[in-house]
Amino acid sequence: MTLDVTLTARSGAARAGTVATARGAYRIPAFMPVGTRGAVKSLDAADLDTLAPELVLANTYHLLLRPGAEVVAALGGIHRFTGWGGHTLTDSGGYQVHSLRPSVDDGGVTFVSVYDGRSVRLTPERAVEVQGLIGADIQMVLDVCTTLPASTETIRLAVDRTASWAQRAAVRHAAIEARPEGQALFGIVQGGTDPVLRKESAERTVAIGFDGYAIGGLSVGETREVMLETVAATVPLLPEDRPRYLMGVGDPVGLVEAIALGVDQFDCVGPTRMARHGSVLTTHGRLVVRNAVHRTDDGPLDTDCPCATCARYSRGYLRHLLTVHEPTAWRLLSVHNLTYTIDLVRGAGRAIAEGCFEHYRQGVRSVWGA
Amino acid sequence: MTLDVTLTARSGAARAGTVATARGAYRIPAFMPVGTRGAVKSLDAADLDTLAPELVLANTYHLLLRPGAEVVAALGGIHRFTGWGGHTLTDSGGYQVHSLRPSVDDGGVTFVSVYDGRSVRLTPERAVEVQGLIGADIQMVLDVCTTLPASTETIRLAVDRTASWAQRAAVRHAAIEARPEGQALFGIVQGGTDPVLRKESAERTVAIGFDGYAIGGLSVGETREVMLETVAATVPLLPEDRPRYLMGVGDPVGLVEAIALGVDQFDCVGPTRMARHGSVLTTHGRLVVRNAVHRTDDGPLDTDCPCATCARYSRGYLRHLLTVHEPTAWRLLSVHNLTYTIDLVRGAGRAIAEGCFEHYRQGVRSVWGA
Repeated sequence: MTLDVTLTARSGAARAGTVATARGAYRIPAFMPVGTRGAVKSLDAADLDTLAPELVLANTYHLLLRPGAEVVAALGGIHRFTGWGGHTLTDSGGYQVHSLRPSVDDGGVTFVSVYDGRSVRLTPERAVEVQGLIGADIQMVLDVCTTLPASTETIRLAVDRTASWAQRAAVRHAAIEARPEGQALFGIVQGGTDPVLRKESAERTVAIGFDGYAIGGLSVGETREVMLETVAATVPLLPEDRPRYLMGVGDPVGLVEAIALGVDQFDCVGPTRMARHGSVLTTHGRLVVRNAVHRTDDGPLDTDCPCATCARYSRGYLRHLLTVHEPTAWRLLSVHNLTYTIDLVRGAGRAIAEGCFEHYRQGVRSVWGA
Repeated sequence: MTLDVTLTARSGAARAGTVATARGAYRIPAFMPVGTRGAVKSLDAADLDTLAPELVLANTYHLLLRPGAEVVAALGGIHRFTGWGGHTLTDSGGYQVHSLRPSVDDGGVTFVSVYDGRSVRLTPERAVEVQGLIGADIQMVLDVCTTLPASTETIRLAVDRTASWAQRAAVRHAAIEARPEGQALFGIVQGGTDPVLRKESAERTVAIGFDGYAIGGLSVGETREVMLETVAATVPLLPEDRPRYLMGVGDPVGLVEAIALGVDQFDCVGPTRMARHGSVLTTHGRLVVRNAVHRTDDGPLDTDCPCATCARYSRGYLRHLLTVHEPTAWRLLSVHNLTYTIDLVRGAGRAIAEGCFEHYRQGVRSVWGA
């Protein structure tokens, strides 16, 4: 089985260590930047070399539509396609069940393409096949992610379909040959914020047996407190020796609190999306660099930041580029916000190893608010 | 006097050498990428380090409006502002007389701001002062650039105003203290495509005496043939020991033909604008990487290109990024097109030095058409 977890340190439920893969290993805890269409928005592979995230996420739904999974395969798979040789994970398209509201039935999902209005069918089996062609190191099962709040009936139906689809995905994944040797598959736990349904979903997913487990269906409308309660109720139901992935969370407090609960990896578009809007993450909290107060501010975004943007550019220059909509600003601020977020999570791992994670967590909370 | 030209080689009228500046020296012939608002669109200063152009152009009209010349000055001037320490030249705003059609009178130009509709007055004196604050290595006089075709009366008026403004600019430039030590000033020759008016404009401009001379008012609607005839008639009227700058030309044939006529430096938004539209300059001619034929093409844009984009990315991947409007594509293709254009002009200089410029010029013409 791939993705064996080797823990090197613990602090309560929080864990630090490595996850073995066919490509090598990645360190946990880890934050994964989102490269939806095969690039982290405005960045290239050389930028990723510098940022050096443990993994990068790409999106199956989008790559299936443009350029098509067969095209990615013809161009050598996601690593050669994007020019980045690090660990890559493809989301299944399940999140688009939440964000695009397609028609869902027991067999699968029917989307309308955002590109040309064409109808696109995704089944659990097809999601496995498509992700096999894309060729990331880790693929995700197709699941049903509901927007919250939702009725118990809606969540129960999502849990049932997610469990049934997970079984079908596992069977297909074991059978297909058109995928990289050792490509891992994660199951996804659903169940809204209902502890009973979460427990049932976790047990049914673990019973099938996956290389890793994701907690899906959160950060979709509920409060952070309720989200963390749900994570706290779910993590103990997942196997110790498998990585645990909380989908869609990337705010500083959400990250350290979920790490405290035993989560290993995360993805979120937040850091790059905020960057493009001029909202900057710093060791002193949020900085709105668009604000007029930074017009002639010649200091860096964050004096404590090691990124290339902080080494070279002033707040005043970055504010100017944002104001006149220069794409250069999006990239420079994305590099900064990703550096902050990747380092925050990596710093949590270091704090766990050094026995000071509680202190680290309180430090993050004191900057970013309870 | 700054900007003394030292020629190291000649081939007919074509010249290769260096231009001395307060910052050091730049090599000619030289192509200047356009960084209108303080950044070459989608690139940052680290990209410029790699491209290593001899000079970069910024635009006075745009920087005057956003963020304001005083803001650039407060942030340390254009070099510290942009983070790029190489040679910089500011255009005066005269080109915007052509592109934005402001109201022009004997005293100066009144623009409507493209940002907020505010009325903005630029006089020859104010253009010198603003460029002094911005602090580039070279500033340009405010001139009157007419769209072609134009009546003889229109062109004569433009020549008269350009000459009168050049005199006023030279006086102001000599007097002001709020500019970098050794900041150079170029005069601009106008006159449309009328040889008599060009001659008059050149003589009146040279009589005033500038650090360098630009040929303006071309590449604004006339054919390349007529443009080159006009350049051929103008260059011999300019002093040998001063750099000659043909404004707004950046296509391969235009560049080598103008170099053959004795022009030393150029600027053009073409290479970066074409890049953003997926039009790629290669040693084999134009490549439209958007075309469907490149869908699964895993070769580089140009096998003979040394740029970072060609070293790492396939045509298929770049086509995909363009198709889905990822800003990453604009940057990667801009890096390529600028590498091509900078190298083309630098290659011309090398060919002049090696005594094979005629061969080089014919090679470029055979690829790009007569």
